[in-house]
Amino acid sequence: MNSYGERFRVTTYGESHGPAVGAVIDGCPAGVALDMEAIAAALVRRRQGAPRQEEDRIEWLSGLRDGITLGTPLAFRVGNHDARPDDYAPLEHLFRPGHADYTYYMKYGLRDHRGGGRASARETVARVVAGSVARQLMPEVDIRAEVHLPAAAQADDTVGGTVSCSITGVPAGIGSPLFGKLNAALAAAMMSIPSAIGFEMGAGFAAAAMTGSEYIDRWNPDGTTRTNHCGGVQGGITNGMPIEFRVAFHPVVSLPQPVECLHEDGHLETVTIGGRHDLCAVQRAPVIVESMAALCLINYLL
Amino acid sequence: MNSYGERFRVTTYGESHGPAVGAVIDGCPAGVALDMEAIAAALVRRRQGAPRQEEDRIEWLSGLRDGITLGTPLAFRVGNHDARPDDYAPLEHLFRPGHADYTYYMKYGLRDHRGGGRASARETVARVVAGSVARQLMPEVDIRAEVHLPAAAQADDTVGGTVSCSITGVPAGIGSPLFGKLNAALAAAMMSIPSAIGFEMGAGFAAAAMTGSEYIDRWNPDGTTRTNHCGGVQGGITNGMPIEFRVAFHPVVSLPQPVECLHEDGHLETVTIGGRHDLCAVQRAPVIVESMAALCLINYLL
Amino acid sequence: MNSYGERFRVTTYGESHGPAVGAVIDGCPAGVALDMEAIAAALVRRRQGAPRQEEDRIEWLSGLRDGITLGTPLAFRVGNHDARPDDYAPLEHLFRPGHADYTYYMKYGLRDHRGGGRASARETVARVVAGSVARQLMPEVDIRAEVHLPAAAQADDTVGGTVSCSITGVPAGIGSPLFGKLNAALAAAMMSIPSAIGFEMGAGFAAAAMTGSEYIDRWNPDGTTRTNHCGGVQGGITNGMPIEFRVAFHPVVSLPQPVECLHEDGHLETVTIGGRHDLCAVQRAPVIVESMAALCLINYLL
Amino acid sequence: MNSYGERFRVTTYGESHGPAVGAVIDGCPAGVALDMEAIAAALVRRRQGAPRQEEDRIEWLSGLRDGITLGTPLAFRVGNHDARPDDYAPLEHLFRPGHADYTYYMKYGLRDHRGGGRASARETVARVVAGSVARQLMPEVDIRAEVHLPAAAQADDTVGGTVSCSITGVPAGIGSPLFGKLNAALAAAMMSIPSAIGFEMGAGFAAAAMTGSEYIDRWNPDGTTRTNHCGGVQGGITNGMPIEFRVAFHPVVSLPQPVECLHEDGHLETVTIGGRHDLCAVQRAPVIVESMAALCLINYLL
Repeated sequence: MNSYGERFRVTTYGESHGPAVGAVIDGCPAGVALDMEAIAAALVRRRQGAPRQEEDRIEWLSGLRDGITLGTPLAFRVGNHDARPDDYAPLEHLFRPGHADYTYYMKYGLRDHRGGGRASARETVARVVAGSVARQLMPEVDIRAEVHLPAAAQADDTVGGTVSCSITGVPAGIGSPLFGKLNAALAAAMMSIPSAIGFEMGAGFAAAAMTGSEYIDRWNPDGTTRTNHCGGVQGGITNGMPIEFRVAFHPVVSLPQPVECLHEDGHLETVTIGGRHDLCAVQRAPVIVESMAALCLINYLL
Repeated sequence: MNSYGERFRVTTYGESHGPAVGAVIDGCPAGVALDMEAIAAALVRRRQGAPRQEEDRIEWLSGLRDGITLGTPLAFRVGNHDARPDDYAPLEHLFRPGHADYTYYMKYGLRDHRGGGRASARETVARVVAGSVARQLMPEVDIRAEVHLPAAAQADDTVGGTVSCSITGVPAGIGSPLFGKLNAALAAAMMSIPSAIGFEMGAGFAAAAMTGSEYIDRWNPDGTTRTNHCGGVQGGITNGMPIEFRVAFHPVVSLPQPVECLHEDGHLETVTIGGRHDLCAVQRAPVIVESMAALCLINYLL
Repeated sequence: MNSYGERFRVTTYGESHGPAVGAVIDGCPAGVALDMEAIAAALVRRRQGAPRQEEDRIEWLSGLRDGITLGTPLAFRVGNHDARPDDYAPLEHLFRPGHADYTYYMKYGLRDHRGGGRASARETVARVVAGSVARQLMPEVDIRAEVHLPAAAQADDTVGGTVSCSITGVPAGIGSPLFGKLNAALAAAMMSIPSAIGFEMGAGFAAAAMTGSEYIDRWNPDGTTRTNHCGGVQGGITNGMPIEFRVAFHPVVSLPQPVECLHEDGHLETVTIGGRHDLCAVQRAPVIVESMAALCLINYLL
Repeated sequence: MNSYGERFRVTTYGESHGPAVGAVIDGCPAGVALDMEAIAAALVRRRQGAPRQEEDRIEWLSGLRDGITLGTPLAFRVGNHDARPDDYAPLEHLFRPGHADYTYYMKYGLRDHRGGGRASARETVARVVAGSVARQLMPEVDIRAEVHLPAAAQADDTVGGTVSCSITGVPAGIGSPLFGKLNAALAAAMMSIPSAIGFEMGAGFAAAAMTGSEYIDRWNPDGTTRTNHCGGVQGGITNGMPIEFRVAFHPVVSLPQPVECLHEDGHLETVTIGGRHDLCAVQRAPVIVESMAALCLINYLL
């Protein structure tokens, strides 16, 4: 399904090579003056350095009067203009390594159905717009992500990286026990981002090698803690410290060099994939991480 | 909410110091002869080496006739016999460091409400029974987790560890795009386990430091791949390779040594917490990881 | 699925001829002292005059301490003692007219699977207990249903009837537009009761023959209305007047006289169905109507 | 929430006086050639005789290539051109009798928020388009509704009526027990239509006055029944007979004559409400009843 959230539910639509992408946001309260410049700025961050260039003009279809939310569903569309479907023609019967071509084909039995267009990074436009709306509903919350590039960029290869995110302004007591843990919801939100391959709260994997006396976050008398190894969440519920997590992204799988593809008839075929190459997509991931974090949090805070 | 899953929905109940724990499983097909010994064996794995000793006898309340599922809800209860609530009396007004005492209090405004009993590892009894039922519905799927202890056990301290899990027998094409990605669902399932603090698929965080040409899983002509850096999932959908992931667990936060607690009135108080200490709970985590993986998968496979 | 509600979710379990019936109630707030006598009294109303006699003793499995709710899931079981499965043996290959035998068989391909026991009126025990809990969470709301028997009882035939229900104490403004209308939710709740065949709000079907000037509920200056043709709900949302609706129940379909059954091999066979006959089940319907109304409302009021 | 359905989920958006109405349809299978003329014809039926005249041109935003569904979300917009918001200016501080003005105000604390535009019959455009798509996914199912007008039309008053609906081509075995009964879902779907005030299956309210021997539908040897008093559903599941139900609609509550409105400050004020009057909206209800029936059924049949 193409929806995220229960109370603040975003349903995204649109193929990368169709007329538009967009979403319906259900659950946005009435009476909020949306800051359209903030939304546009988020979209600028999302496309910075991207090979495909779009103007990303948002057309609001419903839910607003004079820029004020009505409490009714917010619907919007962002037109696609710079699609180049011809770039993909040579791949008609090939499965690229590392891509979702093959898995979509195995699921749907069809090339390009449910897939191509929806698996594209273009879909994250809708997440960023919706996330920006969500952030405006909780101005006291500050969500800040930054990228870490452990691998040096190369001319003929791609690189991955990690994004760390720190969220302040969320009071203690937010989240749920058991299956509704905030950290579980954040993990799912982050792993839903294209190319995400790992998630950790606070000390994360390093905590597995600590002893308990190294790990536990010791109290200050005011209820804050001297360290934040748990990442601000205990038992699935915030403790008032910053919510801190990291997301690992694998490198872009479209390589700017010849790769062996699997032909539908079962032989391997070395091809150089044309089109516009993106050597380091993770540089644009922070705004997507922040957006998904906002969509996750708003469902707990509303 | 205390439910997991949509098609195979498990609703757990029970406090660690109440009369029983258990669950209702909704969505189990009719006509399955449940292997009760397998379920009992899973419960034995769950309690091996645990300080609290329970017999864990399962009483089935509905959904079975002569051991065969009826297709109706499967309900069961497992009695609690070895609870020792008096051990907790000295903590009445204290928040232990690293525990969920404080966050539950901030959420519910009450000590011991929704918390204590439900945050306890005792609740995982219900997950393990339900997970064992789920596994029996997909006998072709093999789920195997093992523990890795990077820290040496000590007499007066606790340790954490990681659990790696490998799942074979899941065909290609299982999962969903976007917000229903299998890896996102696995991440949420794992992070819902008490003490889980990190999750990664395949190469995980190490993938963030690879170049694309190192990372991409090259094809064999039969559709398998020579490496499995993606962990068997691409674009949220299985590719037929083993599903591989790792979960990091932080050390047990109940230390067998004096710790500073936060008193409700705002001063710190050093206490030695009595009761039965568990120096390395992660040793029992594999069966819980396997159970949650089974509950996650069955919702995609049914 | 066997669950009702989102915020206050009741998951029922149990077959009429299995060991027990019961439910898990998820979403009940903490700190409520349950009135167990009120619950027992509701169960007495439910079984008054029923041919099957059960003591209906409730065993609480979780969610309570000293009779006070903990905010955790409330689980309970009610044992079955007076089941007489042998009464049904002659029907092994027959479909009774008017019953769900045939439709369950067409759905599940199996006799007695998912069916028999769950379609039984015995399942309403769980609804009545859960409904009684729900009512205790909204003491300001008064829900009162009464039965209307248009047909005179006969020794060798069964009768149906209607149940009218009036709910006071619900403030104006409860409900939702569109697909979450309170009247739509009430309709679904009522039509989920065994034998329900019609539902109407306020003037109901009679409103279809009125002119607009006869139908509209004229204002009093205090916001009440002089008539209540709309049944207290406009646009899916309460207006503060009593919520009034009626439910039609068809006669019991187990007749105390010979009936033609359909044999699985396709011939008709006249049989006299043994067992305990219930000539007028609708007499016991009011407490079930009230219980389902309570379960519906509490999901809007919490 | 503004969504209907789980497997085939329609999320509608748009205010009557905003730029557009529309929906996102999630769950439509891939590879279906949509019959755009059938959709347009359904919209013509919906607006026949309506005072507001719109061209209702559908712009598809996603989910289609060359008129074939991609399996991705189908999004569409239908522009609003004939809105006349000025007609409503005199009502700024008045609550009309019989309307949802008052209940929306009590819920949201604001005039015209979440309301006005969404409570409008204009919203049913989205239901009719989505319903028409749903019908094309089950061509073997025939859904036919017709209107019955018990009240003669008058120049200065409005009338209500009933809509009967008969659905053929649905096999036996469709539906669910308990809370997922098909008749309960149909009841909710119908009661979600503006002005619906009653719902009955088969013999409906008349069944309440029958004896069991009059009511039960006697078998033919082929599994059909000689009567259809149950309306084709037993125990929540279809029996293969036509699904038959009736919906009562109250008269239009905007009267073409002076009416007493409630002023926000608590006095009554007699006004003649301007704008375009619709004396008999139920004449256009059949296509909406058919559309909602299709949306309900497709969620069981997919």
